[in-house]
Order: sequence, then C-alpha cells, then structure tokens
Amino acid sequence: MPDESLLKLYTKTRNQSQLACRPLVTEDFGLQAEAFTSPPKWHLAHTSWFFETFLLKPFVAHYRTPNEQYQVLFNSYYNGVGEQFTRGRRGLLSRPTVDEVMAYRAHVDQAMAHLLSDANHPQRDTITTRCRLGIEHEQQHQELFYTDLKYSLAANPLYPTYSNAPPDSPHLSPEPAGPADLQWREYTGGVVTVGVDTDQAGAHAFAFDNESPAHSSYLNPYALANRLVTNAEFQAFVDDGGYQRPEFWLADGWATVQQEQWRQPLYWQDRDGRALQFTLHGLQARLPHQAVCHLSGYEADAYASWAGARLPTEMEWESAARAQPFTPTEFEQDKLHPGQARGAEPLLQLYDDCWQWTGSAYRPYPGFKASPGAIGEYNGKFMANQWVLRGGSCVSQGGHVRPTYRNFFYPQDRWQFSGLRLARDV
Amino acid sequence: MPDESLLKLYTKTRNQSQLACRPLVTEDFGLQAEAFTSPPKWHLAHTSWFFETFLLKPFVAHYRTPNEQYQVLFNSYYNGVGEQFTRGRRGLLSRPTVDEVMAYRAHVDQAMAHLLSDANHPQRDTITTRCRLGIEHEQQHQELFYTDLKYSLAANPLYPTYSNAPPDSPHLSPEPAGPADLQWREYTGGVVTVGVDTDQAGAHAFAFDNESPAHSSYLNPYALANRLVTNAEFQAFVDDGGYQRPEFWLADGWATVQQEQWRQPLYWQDRDGRALQFTLHGLQARLPHQAVCHLSGYEADAYASWAGARLPTEMEWESAARAQPFTPTEFEQDKLHPGQARGAEPLLQLYDDCWQWTGSAYRPYPGFKASPGAIGEYNGKFMANQWVLRGGSCVSQGGHVRPTYRNFFYPQDRWQFSGLRLARDV
Amino acid sequence: MPDESLLKLYTKTRNQSQLACRPLVTEDFGLQAEAFTSPPKWHLAHTSWFFETFLLKPFVAHYRTPNEQYQVLFNSYYNGVGEQFTRGRRGLLSRPTVDEVMAYRAHVDQAMAHLLSDANHPQRDTITTRCRLGIEHEQQHQELFYTDLKYSLAANPLYPTYSNAPPDSPHLSPEPAGPADLQWREYTGGVVTVGVDTDQAGAHAFAFDNESPAHSSYLNPYALANRLVTNAEFQAFVDDGGYQRPEFWLADGWATVQQEQWRQPLYWQDRDGRALQFTLHGLQARLPHQAVCHLSGYEADAYASWAGARLPTEMEWESAARAQPFTPTEFEQDKLHPGQARGAEPLLQLYDDCWQWTGSAYRPYPGFKASPGAIGEYNGKFMANQWVLRGGSCVSQGGHVRPTYRNFFYPQDRWQFSGLRLARDV
Amino acid sequence: MPDESLLKLYTKTRNQSQLACRPLVTEDFGLQAEAFTSPPKWHLAHTSWFFETFLLKPFVAHYRTPNEQYQVLFNSYYNGVGEQFTRGRRGLLSRPTVDEVMAYRAHVDQAMAHLLSDANHPQRDTITTRCRLGIEHEQQHQELFYTDLKYSLAANPLYPTYSNAPPDSPHLSPEPAGPADLQWREYTGGVVTVGVDTDQAGAHAFAFDNESPAHSSYLNPYALANRLVTNAEFQAFVDDGGYQRPEFWLADGWATVQQEQWRQPLYWQDRDGRALQFTLHGLQARLPHQAVCHLSGYEADAYASWAGARLPTEMEWESAARAQPFTPTEFEQDKLHPGQARGAEPLLQLYDDCWQWTGSAYRPYPGFKASPGAIGEYNGKFMANQWVLRGGSCVSQGGHVRPTYRNFFYPQDRWQFSGLRLARDV
Repeated sequence: MPDESLLKLYTKTRNQSQLACRPLVTEDFGLQAEAFTSPPKWHLAHTSWFFETFLLKPFVAHYRTPNEQYQVLFNSYYNGVGEQFTRGRRGLLSRPTVDEVMAYRAHVDQAMAHLLSDANHPQRDTITTRCRLGIEHEQQHQELFYTDLKYSLAANPLYPTYSNAPPDSPHLSPEPAGPADLQWREYTGGVVTVGVDTDQAGAHAFAFDNESPAHSSYLNPYALANRLVTNAEFQAFVDDGGYQRPEFWLADGWATVQQEQWRQPLYWQDRDGRALQFTLHGLQARLPHQAVCHLSGYEADAYASWAGARLPTEMEWESAARAQPFTPTEFEQDKLHPGQARGAEPLLQLYDDCWQWTGSAYRPYPGFKASPGAIGEYNGKFMANQWVLRGGSCVSQGGHVRPTYRNFFYPQDRWQFSGLRLARDV
Repeated sequence: MPDESLLKLYTKTRNQSQLACRPLVTEDFGLQAEAFTSPPKWHLAHTSWFFETFLLKPFVAHYRTPNEQYQVLFNSYYNGVGEQFTRGRRGLLSRPTVDEVMAYRAHVDQAMAHLLSDANHPQRDTITTRCRLGIEHEQQHQELFYTDLKYSLAANPLYPTYSNAPPDSPHLSPEPAGPADLQWREYTGGVVTVGVDTDQAGAHAFAFDNESPAHSSYLNPYALANRLVTNAEFQAFVDDGGYQRPEFWLADGWATVQQEQWRQPLYWQDRDGRALQFTLHGLQARLPHQAVCHLSGYEADAYASWAGARLPTEMEWESAARAQPFTPTEFEQDKLHPGQARGAEPLLQLYDDCWQWTGSAYRPYPGFKASPGAIGEYNGKFMANQWVLRGGSCVSQGGHVRPTYRNFFYPQDRWQFSGLRLARDV
Repeated sequence: MPDESLLKLYTKTRNQSQLACRPLVTEDFGLQAEAFTSPPKWHLAHTSWFFETFLLKPFVAHYRTPNEQYQVLFNSYYNGVGEQFTRGRRGLLSRPTVDEVMAYRAHVDQAMAHLLSDANHPQRDTITTRCRLGIEHEQQHQELFYTDLKYSLAANPLYPTYSNAPPDSPHLSPEPAGPADLQWREYTGGVVTVGVDTDQAGAHAFAFDNESPAHSSYLNPYALANRLVTNAEFQAFVDDGGYQRPEFWLADGWATVQQEQWRQPLYWQDRDGRALQFTLHGLQARLPHQAVCHLSGYEADAYASWAGARLPTEMEWESAARAQPFTPTEFEQDKLHPGQARGAEPLLQLYDDCWQWTGSAYRPYPGFKASPGAIGEYNGKFMANQWVLRGGSCVSQGGHVRPTYRNFFYPQDRWQFSGLRLARDV
Repeated sequence: MPDESLLKLYTKTRNQSQLACRPLVTEDFGLQAEAFTSPPKWHLAHTSWFFETFLLKPFVAHYRTPNEQYQVLFNSYYNGVGEQFTRGRRGLLSRPTVDEVMAYRAHVDQAMAHLLSDANHPQRDTITTRCRLGIEHEQQHQELFYTDLKYSLAANPLYPTYSNAPPDSPHLSPEPAGPADLQWREYTGGVVTVGVDTDQAGAHAFAFDNESPAHSSYLNPYALANRLVTNAEFQAFVDDGGYQRPEFWLADGWATVQQEQWRQPLYWQDRDGRALQFTLHGLQARLPHQAVCHLSGYEADAYASWAGARLPTEMEWESAARAQPFTPTEFEQDKLHPGQARGAEPLLQLYDDCWQWTGSAYRPYPGFKASPGAIGEYNGKFMANQWVLRGGSCVSQGGHVRPTYRNFFYPQDRWQFSGLRLARDV
C-alpha cells in the first residue's frame, strides 16, 4: 500500500471513530456497565495510545506525549508495555475529559501524518505494517464501541436511543414477507486449505496473525444453512421450554443458565404482550424474520441441539465461504441492527448481520508464531477457553471482515452482535 | 419559622448544592467509584425527588413531574415509595443529562416556591415541617457530595484537584507551631439528660427523629481529650506496627485489616519519602498537627486501645458538648480538609474538622417512634450494626450540626471525614 | 471453691462432653456444614487444648503434649497463642482420629487431675481461677456441640435423628392445652444496678469478664412478656406476609431476607400440608405452643415490630430477671427442643427454652478491662457488631446460666436456640 | 465378552474399589476438601448407584433399592435421572455410614451377579454393554478416588500417609542415574486416522463414546519428546522466574496465577532448604528425574512456551502412540507416584506416570452422537472449555487406558496426576 493511500485510510478510519460519537452527550462518554465493556472515551483514547506506543514512541525522534500517565491509563492488556489501569474501573476516569481526549487524538494524528509522510524513514516497512495493524485495531474498536455502548445504555431504564433511524427502515418495520425457507447447502469436504499465507497475499491485503499460516485441514462432508436463525425460530425454542430443559445444553451452559437466570436472549423484553428488543435505535418491536442476535455460544449450541443440527466448525465455515464471491456490504450508521435474509448467493448473511458462533475452540493454527515483543500479545495469549465466531455484523466496519477472519469470545458472552448459522453432517 | 424565612432557607440551601458543582466538568457528574457512594448528579436529583415526593406530589393539586420514571431512578431506599433503581449502578445513568437534572431542580424549585407561598394551605404545618426536613436532608447530601466525590476522584491516578485553594491556606501549609499538648477534661457523670425534647424545642429549632426523645442516662465519671488525634500521633501508631498487631483490634476489625490489606488511613500515600494525602485540593503534604481523618471505626478503636484510652460513648460526648457554648463555624468552600486545633474552649474541634467515632452502637433512644409512612424510613430502619459519630466536619454545612446530632456509619467505613477524640475512665 | 470440689466439677464436665457423643457414629465427628460451626471432634479437642494451653503448659513443669501441632490445629482464635488452622476447614481433619482425640482428652485429664491435686503449687489461685474458666468454657462448647451438630445433620436429606426421646415426651407430642394468655409484667426502671461485682461475689460464684463491672444504668418504665413468643404466634406473622413486607424490618435485616431468601425460621418445613421442624429428635411436628426457636435477631426484631412491641434491652431483661428467684432447670439429654410455658413465676421460660434476643449491641460495660495476655481475647475482642442474648436454652448446661450472663451473636445468626420475649414501654 | 468373564471382570473391579480403602480410617471416608473432589465413601456409593440406575432398576423385575433417597444422594450429574444432591456438600453425608454403604455395595453386587447370570434375559446385549460401561466407570472413579483423597489429605497439616510403600521404592529414593537426554521423535503427519470405529473393534474391546467415530485428520510434520518433563526441568523454569513472567502464559493462565498466587506446582514444598512434595506415601523428597506432576494445563503450556516448544495436539499424540506397540503397565498399590523414564520405546512414559496435557480443546469428533437418554450425559455435555489429556497415570487402573482414550479437565485443574510431554513443529 503506497504511503499516500495508507494515510488516507488512516485518516478515514480515525474520522470514523469520531463520527460515531456524534449522537452522544458528554455524559455518555464514561459509561461502563461491566468490566468487559469499555467507555466510549476509553476506546477513543486507547486506539490513539496504540499508534503512540507502537509507532510514535519507537519511530519518531523526540516525540512528546501529552501526558506520561496515558501510557498506563490507556494500555489495555499489553504486559510488555508495562502496567495497566484496572480494566473494570475505566468508567471512573472522568479526566482526561472528552475534550482532552479529542486533543490527544489530534496530537497523535498530527504526528502520524508527519511520520507517514516521511518516505525515507529507515523503518518504513515496519511503520507501514504497524500502521495498517493500528487501523484494523481501530476498526475492531469501532465495533466494540457499538456493542459496549449498547450494553451500557441498556442499563438505563430510560432506554436511551443512540440513533434515530428513519421509522420506515426495513430493519425496524414489519417485514412484508418472510424469507425463503431455510435451505441446506452441501459441501464435500476432504482436505481443504484454510488460513492466510502472508507471503502470497497481495500487497494491499491485510490479515491478523491468528489467520496464519495457511494450512490443510480434513473435513467430512457437511451442510450449512443458507441463512441465519431468525427471531421467530428462536422464539419457538423458547416456547418449547428451551431454557428449562437441560438435555439441550452443554453442562457449563446449563450452569450458566441457572446462575444468570437466563430465560431468553439478551435485550429481549416482553411487555404487555408485545415482543420487544432493545436496539441502538431504542426499544423496538422484535421482527420475526430478523436474524436472532446477542446469543451466547451456549445458547447458540443449545438451539442447534434442539433443532437437530449443530454449530459449524470454523474450517467448515471458512471453506464454504471461500467457495463463493466475497462481497461484504458497507457499514451504515443508521442500520445498527441485523436484518432479514435477502439475496441469492448460496450462503446469505455471511458478513453483514450477526457474527456466527462456530463449534471451534480458539486455538493457534499449526505453525502459528506470535510476533516478538508486546505486539505479539495482540492475539496469541487469548487462545484458550474462547470460541471462534466467523463472518461479520451490522456494526462491523466495511472492509474490515473477510472469509478468513477469526473473531473470538467466551461462550458465555452475549453482548456482541452474535447469532447462529446451523450446520449438519451429510 | 415564618414562611418567608423558610423559603429563604430553602433557596439558600438549594443554591448551595449547585454552587458546589461549579468546579466540576460534565464528565465528573456521573462518577461512582463504589456502591456506597453516589454520583454528584444523583445527589442533585435525589434531593429534588425528596421535595417532589414528600411535598409536591401529596400537597400540590395537579402537580406534574417532568418524568414519571424519576420516581424510581432517584428513590434512594424508601420502600414505602416503591421500587428503587439499583444503588451500585447510579453511575450508569448518563441520562437524564446534567442539564436535564438542573431543569428538574428548577422545576421543583418553582413549584416549591409556589407551595411555600400559599399561606392558606390546609396542610401548612406539615408542609413547613417536611420542608425543613427536606432542607436538612439536602444539607446532609451536600456533605455526602464531598465525601463521595473525593472517593471517586481518588480512583483516578491523575488525582484531579476539586478546589484550588490558595497555596498559603493554613490547612495546606506547614504549621508554624504544634498544638498545645493533649489535655484531659474531666466530667462527673451521674444521671444526665441527653437527646431532644421536640415539644420543648424552640419554634425554629430542628432535630432529626433519631435525636429524640430526651431521656436520662447514667454515666460513670469520665474524661475527654480536649482535641482530636493528629496525623503525627496516628503516624506513631503506624510506626509501632499498629496495623500488624492484632492485640489492639476488635476481631471484626482485624479481619477487615487482613482482608482489605489496610496499612494506613485511607488517602495516605508515602512517595519517595514524602508523606502525602489525597485531598479535595489535590495531592498534598500530610501535616503533622492536622486532625487525622478518614479512619474507620475499627482504626479509631484500635488507635485508642494502643494509646491506653478508649472511644467515648455518645452520651459522654453529648453531655460534655452541652456543657460548653455551641459555636459551629461556617462552611468554607476553599477549606475542605481538617485543620489543627486552635482556641481555648475546654473541648476543641467539636464540629469543624472531623466527625468523631464513638463506641456507641446506633440504636433507638428509649421511647423512639419512627414517623408513619415512608418518611419513617429516614432513620429508624438503619438502627443496627452502625456506630454513632458525633460532632461535624470541615465539609458539614454551617447550621446543620449541633450537640445532639447523631451521625452513623458502619465501623468499616472510611470514606467519611471521620476522626477520633480519646476518652478514658476517671 | 475447694480443690476437691473443683476437680469433681472438672471431671463431671469433662465426662459430660463425652456422654453427649454417645449417639454419634464415627462419621458424624467430622461434620462441619458451614465455617461458623465446628465438628464434634473439634469441640472435644479444642476444650482440651484450652486446659493444656492455659494451665498445663504454663504451670506443669516438663508437661509433654501428645502432638506439638495440636497447638495450631485446635487453637480457635487466640492470636496471642499463635497461628490457627483455618476455621472453615476443621471438618477436613480426619486425623487425629476420634480415638486419638479421646486419648488426647485422657492425657489432659490425667495431667489436670495431678495439677489440681497439688495443693502447694505456687500459682494455686491462678490455677483455680483458670480451671474454673476452662470448665465454663467447656460448658459453652457443650451447647455449641448441639447447635453445630443440629445444623450439620440438617444438611443431610436423610434427616438423621440424634436422640430418640420417648415419643410421649411433652415437647414432641400435641399439647393438651395452650399456655395462659401472654401477660405483661411491668417494671418501674430508674437507676438500676446491673452486672457482677467480682469482689463481692461469693467464693464459689463464677462470672465471665464481660459481666463486669457492676454498674448503674438508667431505665425508663417498661414491661416484659411473661413468656416467649410461640410457634403459633410466629406462624401468624408468616401468614400475614411478614417475610414480604419491608416495613417491619431493619434495613440490614431486609437485605438479608432478600439475599438468603428467608421465608420462615430455620428448620421449619411445610410438607404435604404438615407443619414440621427438624430437631435433634429428628423431623417432628411443629407444636403451636412451643417457643419459636432458631430466629435471627433480625427476625426477632421484625416480629416484635409487627406485634407492636419491641425487643427488651439487656438491662431491662437483667433487672427484671434479678427481681425474681433464680431457678434454672437441669439439662436433660432427651429434651433437646424448647417446650411450652409452664409455671407461675412472673417471668417464665427465662433459662430453659430459648435464648432471648435483646435490642442491645454487645459492648463493654463501663470500666471493663480484659485480662492481660491471650486469655484476654476470650470476650473483649468480640464486642462489636453482635447483639446480646439473655437467658439460656434447652441445650444449656445446668449451672452454666444466670441472670447476668451475656450471650452474643451476630443479628443474622439463626443456628442457635434463639427465640424472643417481647417488651414495651409503659 | 462372554458373561462369565464379564462377571469376573465386574467382581474384580468391585473388589478393587474396596481394596483401595484398606488404609483408610473411618474418619477419612467423608473427606471433601473442595467441591471438585468427592469423598471416598461417595465414590463407593455412586459407582453402585450407576449399576443400580442403569441396570438393576430398568432390567430387574421387582428390584428393591435399600433406600429410595440414594437415587438423589448418589446421582452425580445425570439430569435425566432427576435431582442431584449438591456436589460441594457430599462430605456432609455422615449417613449412610461406611458400613451402610458397604452393605449397599453388597446388595448391588448380589443383584448384579444374578442379572449377569441370566443368559436368557431379553435385553442381554444392552445389559452386557452397559455393565461394561459401569465397570469402566468404576475404574475411572478408582483413579478419582486417589486424586481426590490426595487433595483432601493435603489439607491436613499432619500430612497423613495413605500408603506406606517400602522405603527403597524406586519412586521414593534417590535415583542412581538420570534419564537419557530428552530425544525428539519425528512424525510425518499427513492424513491420519484417529478415533475408534466401534463396529470394527473386536468383541472384547471397549471405548467410550467420545473416542468415536474413527475419522481422518490432517497433521503437519511434528516431533514429540521421548519422555515427560522432569521435576529438575520444571525447577529450572521456576528458578528462571517462570511464575513471574507473563510472556510465557496464556492470558487466562496468567490471571489464574495472580489470583491463586501460584508459585510452583501443587504439592511442592520447600522447607528448610529441602525440596519436598506431598504424595500418597506422605511428605517425600522431590526427585529430580521424576516426571513433574500435578500441573494445570496453564502451567504445562507456559513451561512449553518457556522451553521453546509447545503442547502436542491430541491427534499428534494419538497418531504417534498408535505407531508403537501398546503395553500399559499394571496398577501397583504401593507405587502411587510417577517415576522416571526407563525403557527403549520411541515414546516412553505414555501410560504409567502422568496424564499428558494436550493443546486440544475437548470437543466432539466429527459425526459424534451421544447415546439417547440419561446415559448420553456421560461425556457429551462436557465438551466445552476443557482440554484433552492423553495417556494414563500411576493411579490409572491396568487395562483401563489405551491410545485412543480422551481424558479431559479444565485448564486450571491441578489435582489430577497430570504432567507434560513436549512437542514441536518439524
């Protein structure tokens, strides 16, 4: 990627983070409902910290940070960089203020523009690579911005509306017609290639280290559903006593259901006979043909079990996804909720509605090597106890997702835009 | 109290709450570091809710609240009023915004002004009594505003400064001379009268229900220290291994020391050989002759035990305090930390530096009756497991404290401006 | 007390501990259902440890303990003696075995007999005093043996029967007639004397340090119920929604009710329309005129509030109890459950059915001084956060209780034989 | 398997469970140090319950259980059978006594002998299959008996000795010579077959459902260490600050190290300069060439990372193990601790010292189907969040392990006899 387009992509990405804040009032910037979420302001600062830590401090002579303490305050989890401010207390950082964080962003942006313009920097290649990583990192945080904000706003009984989408938005209004019946797409399996070969990838391509190396995997024949499970389908599971019947659940999932008193997906509400759900567009009707969203891995697995199916493995998903053209849709600021299946590809809703839980544990690919130094903590150290999700969601940034992308969360996590595509043996 | 002066007192008190917010940035209004603290914004709203709930809704025909949900959001603990929003999650209420809460205050103030001006209201006496209670209630929250804010700001490693007091303030600068030696004032005891006889109190006097009835109590002869324990004195306890020696501690106190890893009073910090403390004026030097502050009841008791003394009972304290003229000082916005003993009364620092832990459990006085209805929940239901503190502090509002005032907190609580006056048998 | 009768009392008490174990199988000796209970075997060992630690080790030259590690294993809470084995893990000490603990007891008994027979020991007075303390200490543990065992057996759905009392025992069979109506006994109050003057007590008298010094206390006129609250009366509270109505509860009590999901007293069970309760005689019918038992202080307080009365203070209780002859009944091994009121004294059921919660916080008497050294930890360090109970219970040892006795537990504790006598102002 | 040999195997296995109890005193039978362990008595009862529930109740007309409540008391986790007594409170079941449990075992054995002798039973095949499952189930509990007992005995500072092995036992005495250097065995990988094809297995073969179906898997070339990691090697990791350096640890592992304050493997103790470890033979010297044991998966993974290697996958392990003759050693009652590597096979210590952590998450094999009904809960529902261990250990029963066996525990679990064999890419 030539430096000019890199700077352009950098600038576009950085602006996007601030655009997303427009509907916020100052009071919203500090919201952190649980330790696993971060306040909007912290996302803004941490993504700047990332560029400062991994690019400006090592590669810009005499770079001056606005505040030495930001190194600790906005370090997420990089032990190689030093101490971290306690994760669950990020909401207590009323200072620096929003204005000060915006100034921090501007300070970093100015220095970055200067650095990226230095065509003769001796570390130019590393700078390019790391800058691209920082951009993708910020795009990940843009998605987390939405998921975290939604979770925190939901803690307020006033149910604040983040985005006032037009009332006739297709994802908010009664659907004229249901989706086509669920259809099964069959795949033959055998030895398939999955993952990314970084040497062979094109000059502009980007992939995280956890997507590499490319390698062979053996698959039995299998079938995938052409679309995601819908609200109406999941409602049938609920109505059939799904949350009261242990036979559908993994043991750890069942324990979680009991402990957390789960009775339906996160954000679902039944009030006075109306089926509602909290969305970034406020409290809205639950539309039957929308993809069901905000499931934990346990709920996804239990639904599949109830439906006589199973979750796909990540290799099955990737192999099938690579068999059809890759056309992710653009991110739309006024469509922040998954919609219903539309189109004619073999597999619909791959990238633009909900992340799809797979049955695969998040582990390193054969031959995986983390980068040396703190940047190697980006992915590798999380490769235990989490499950892989594939695809993308309505709050993923355009251009950020791809068939090889490996997202990962704990199976009890529900606050992501996570749904489910069924699989079965053939 | 004539209605005119009541309205004047009402207005003065309400303005004071807002004056206290001047140094805050918008981001500070939502800070809640622990469940036992409340955000500044919540204090502003809850005190308004109190007037609305106990005066406007019952006594103003056709009163309209700005938002029906405020009844739940800003109810602290009144089961008789209905549900309460979860205490530990008040910091998540980014909405209503600060502006909206200020508008709520204005709305209530306008309606209150109207109500207080209605000289012919059939419930005039009740209105007067309750309004006075609401004013005292708001003054209590003004003190909590400071204690809670201090606690929450302290969670930020940037140690924000709330108030920029002049650098030559006597409570921030090295003290020219130490206080007089600690002197013991002796009292004969016997049958004494404590508490307030509401019928006999003057027309303008106010006391909380927990200060009544006036009653007799038998005291053995005793002595009280003329001043509070100082930082230097408490430092000697620390240096003598006070926090490592169980023999000075109550069993529950010792368990708390172990569990919480207490090693010195809250807000004390030793950095690079400098003795510091966090104050509302920022991180400051710990002055040796200042009253030691932010002790739990357990620490106060352990110190007394180490010093060969004990805590006074609340009856001893009150009886002695009533034996000398009552002259509380005015609250000063730029003096938000306890100072050193000055003056010539028998007992110094009674009301203006730190609340003083007593050895008395907070229980009802003989013959105590809580008011009927929700307002009866104000004090009575808390009369278990807490200890009484007497006096007042540098963040108490002028006119709010008096010799009979019973403050109460759990013995493990440290975030109040709480210190210690020694007592002993004679 | 002459040495001869002291040895006799020692021997009788020690034997009683072992008699109480007769109905146990070996497997029962290690039961510890919660950290606040101790296994039967541990009680047997700890009471021996007490004599060994405070008498044999300091006063017998060349005394040899069977096992040096017992010093830690069987130390309850005496920091002055050194480390303690973790309280909640006492049930994990399968070794020493029951036989080894019995051998430890015999070893201590032999050495004690020798020591008590040494009329010329230079520390004879201290030995006599401490031995008497050790005896009273063991009697306390005899009561704890029953309360702890009952709690642990109740964890077993087989509901093991500890004692097969005759089926026509009056405390297990339908009562021929109800008790006389509750009657109120009035007392004038004024300055009363409470507590024990150790110098004036007779040569044989014993009292714990927490009962001293004798001192004056001022009481308003008051009345006490002549008998304890019954199962039938408490059932009426339950049936009136007592556990669902916060207006009767202290705030901390109400929080406990919610958290612990209390719906009725500990050990009550309703099965197939039958009102049952678990007792040391197995699962038995709940008799309406029995004293209600196993209440927490919060439940006792809430009942009193519902009944328009209150808990007595410990001073009221003691002053009234001292006004009538003191005649505690003997402990009976086959009557291990409270019965119904019988007799004609002004106050019935003072000592032989249930301990009676008072509204007094457990604090030191004016002038109280703990003994020096580890033995001073016996009572003094617990004087915070607990409530005083007065009287005695069906599982108290005969001769152990008296009008000045101060028992104490946390207000949330329910596993003691604790009930309630109403009081009111006059 | 002909019925005669099945009954023989049944009887041998049942006797073995009781033989293992010989060194116990009655008091030991109830020990349960943590919820994840079970008391010896419970293992004895639960294994009998298994035969009763899945064989006697369904297949023996008029079978009478000694106690209907055993169905709940000794149900481990089978929701399909009904309620379960709380897992963490099994130690509180002093009744049924040891004798009663032994009588329960005899009752079940007699009924089983009768059932197995009925050659004409219409459900003969199912009976044979389930009986074999019950036998293997009991063998698993025999291993758990040792791991759980060791953990519970370790909670006692007296460090009871379970087995007095001869003092010259090779696993307790200084080793004459070290093991050969660690050697790497290389494997080519490619498409390999793993798992068990139940139809093709011989008539006598047994495998759990989680070992099926046989299926293909693709492996890159890899190498395995010929022996397990030793105490001396692990000591080097400890000495190099392994427990203080986050760079070697998975994020969840590092969090566990901090929270649990791990500093060395479970049961290691350093006293007065001596390197000790608690074993079932008491507190013993830590021998340098013994396989290091009682590692969590996190510790195993961190060690491998520090050593520049990695954990094998379960497929790598199985494929390599199947490439050499399978010769597990017999279980020896006086060798209850892992020893050092001896022999000449390519891979040593496969089955007889420590289970070996793999890097594979425990998930179903492609095409896995759980059995219908409660028995289907045996394995399938645990296929989340656990890691696979392969091999066997010094406390595994002879004949119970095999190359395809999949053991599984949570990565934080340390109380199993779990060690580590290194792997690396080639």
